[in-house]
This record gives sequence, structure tokens and C-alpha cells, in this order.
Amino acid sequence: MKFSPLVDELIQSLKCLPGVGPKSAQRMAFQLLERDRKAGSKLADSLGKAMSEVGHCQSCRTFTEETYCPICVSTKRGHSSVICVVETPADVLAIEAGGHFSGRYFVLLGHLSPLDGVGPDELGLALLETHLASGEVTELILATNPTVEGDATAHYIADMAKNHELAVSRIAHGVPVGGELEYVDSTTLALSFNGRLPI
Amino acid sequence: MKFSPLVDELIQSLKCLPGVGPKSAQRMAFQLLERDRKAGSKLADSLGKAMSEVGHCQSCRTFTEETYCPICVSTKRGHSSVICVVETPADVLAIEAGGHFSGRYFVLLGHLSPLDGVGPDELGLALLETHLASGEVTELILATNPTVEGDATAHYIADMAKNHELAVSRIAHGVPVGGELEYVDSTTLALSFNGRLPI
Ligand SMILES: [Zn+2]
Ligand SMILES: [Zn+2]
Repeated sequence: MKFSPLVDELIQSLKCLPGVGPKSAQRMAFQLLERDRKAGSKLADSLGKAMSEVGHCQSCRTFTEETYCPICVSTKRGHSSVICVVETPADVLAIEAGGHFSGRYFVLLGHLSPLDGVGPDELGLALLETHLASGEVTELILATNPTVEGDATAHYIADMAKNHELAVSRIAHGVPVGGELEYVDSTTLALSFNGRLPI
Repeated sequence: MKFSPLVDELIQSLKCLPGVGPKSAQRMAFQLLERDRKAGSKLADSLGKAMSEVGHCQSCRTFTEETYCPICVSTKRGHSSVICVVETPADVLAIEAGGHFSGRYFVLLGHLSPLDGVGPDELGLALLETHLASGEVTELILATNPTVEGDATAHYIADMAKNHELAVSRIAHGVPVGGELEYVDSTTLALSFNGRLPI
């Protein structure tokens, strides 16, 4: 016996959220229905609006509902000579939270993955090429993930950049500050030895 | 620097879901935006509809968008002589999943909690009283939670039922089947001794 079509549908739909299984979907639906319908309606509104109105910045490809994102329109950073290339908008947020980088970004929205049909086109590399060709950019920092695909993507872009006069670098990977050597995985440890600097 | 007003608002709104903090809210928002806008829009729809259209069954108070829930309108169960009283709609689902109970329910939508302003009115006890007074009901099973408040609520309702000719019972609490005695908490163990039956 079904409970109620609308409640069942809500529980089903909540399962599209990452990490939400049938049990938590039910708990979420009941909590909103029992205790917080106002917040539930607000979530429905912002979700609907975000899904239909949020697009990608025409310059850096991060999420925005405008033509250009706030960083790309800012007079300070929008035409910065330094571009940091990342895989996802979440990476932009993480770097912004650090507050040490004051250039602009280019968001690939993925990494090269031929088997999944993700090539240079899907990553917007033609758009990145127009930035490099504009003559505005003097430095390209490759901050893709330290994975096989992220490395391959970084190397592909570094090759692309060779046609332009640019400093190209890859962010350092190694033991995180505050991390204990003994708990760091061996790949990270190897990277941290390879990237050692004189003191 | 804010990311994008609509994305920020979506992340804020997602935090109304139980168990969702800032990090998972961000992960949910980005996953929907990057990979599954269709599912996100569907969730927005079902959420909006459920929040505004789902009400309570006029007979048993569980969630439904109709006047009466499917159990209460069913010819087999709607006028059953056995009513099981539970605290929440989730309890109804749990008991239905078991498939052993074929009577009808009465959902309190809470338990007596004078300090939070939850009294007999909030639990719909006047409606329960009309069911008891109808003469249709011969048995009342109290399945509120085995907590101080759940017990107090069960006793209150048992007192109420004394004015009618009814068998009133409380569901048994004890060691769960398949559970190991050694891992069962002491209160449950005490309940299971008090409720012992001859074999
Ligand atoms: Zn941008
Ligand atoms: Zn009902």
C-alpha cells in the first residue's frame, strides 16, 4: 500500500541528492512536512530557479546566472595576467576560501577522459586558447587534481600553452601542513620528495 | 567574494535538510548543477507540490493530499475495529513494511510534551475520542515510542479509553529478534524481563 502519491514522489526525488538513500530521503521528507514547510517551499523555489537560470560564465566557465561571474567582471581580477585552471567550480570556492590567489580562473568542468567522451571541446579549451592568444596572460597555473586524469589534462594544457609566451606551472602536491608524515599515502609522499625545495 | 546569488541561495536552502551541513549542501548543489539538472528540477517540483498540497487525513491524521488516506478509504481497513496509535507517519510506514497489522491507525503527530506546548489538542485526541465513541472500535493498540513522553502519552490515552468498552494494550518492548543480549541496553533488557511470557 502506497502512502500518498505526492509524499512517495518527494521521497523518490530526494534520492537524486548525493549520499541520500531511501531511509534518509524518507527522514528528510517527513521532517520538512512535519516541521518546516516554509523552509521546504523555499528550497523548492531556489532549486527550481538555480536549475533553470544558472549557466556558465562566458569567460571562465564557472557557475553564474549572469553573462560573466563576479570575478571576471571585477576590475581588479577580470583581466588579471594570471589564470588558474581548475576542474570544478568547487575548486574555485576552495581556493577563494584560502584567500591567497588574486588572479582569475578557468574552470574545465571536468578532466580529459576519452572513454567518457570528454575531450578538449568538452573542457572549453578553445575558449582558454582565446585567453592565451589575447596577449593579456603571462602566467598559467595548472591546479587540476593530482590524479591520472588531472595530470594528463594538465600536460595537455601545458603543451597547448607552449605556442604562447607564458610561464606555466603546476601547483605543488605533498604532505599537507599539519599532517603527520606517517599517515600520508605513498603517492603523496613520493610527490613531496620529487617537489623538494632547497632551504 | 560571493559565488553567484542563486547558487549561494541554493546552498543555504539545502541546509534545511536534516543531516546536511555547509559542505554537503555545496556538494549537493554542485552535483545537481553539473550533472543532473533534470532530477534537480523534478525535485523542486515535487518538493513545492508536497509542501503546499500534502495535508492530514481527516480520520487518522497521517499525511495525505486527499481528505482521507488510502488506508482510511479502503473498504477492508477503513472501518476496522482495531486502531493502532502511533506518534508519526514514519511509524505507520514501519509497521506497514512489517505487513502484520491489518487494522487502521491514529497518528498523534507527536507526543505529550507540556513544556513544548504539546497537549491533547495538538495530538488530535478529540478526534480519537470520536472514533472510540462511535462504537466501531473494540481494540486500541498503543504503539507510541518507549520513551518517557511516549509512555506518558500511552497512559493518558489508556485513561481516556476507560470510558469506552475496549481492549487496550501497549506493544511489547524487549530484545529485538536476532539481537544479542549482550548488546542490548539495560532499559530494554528490564522491559523484556517485565514483559516475560510463559512458554
Ligand atoms: Zn568568470
Ligand atoms: Zn487515514
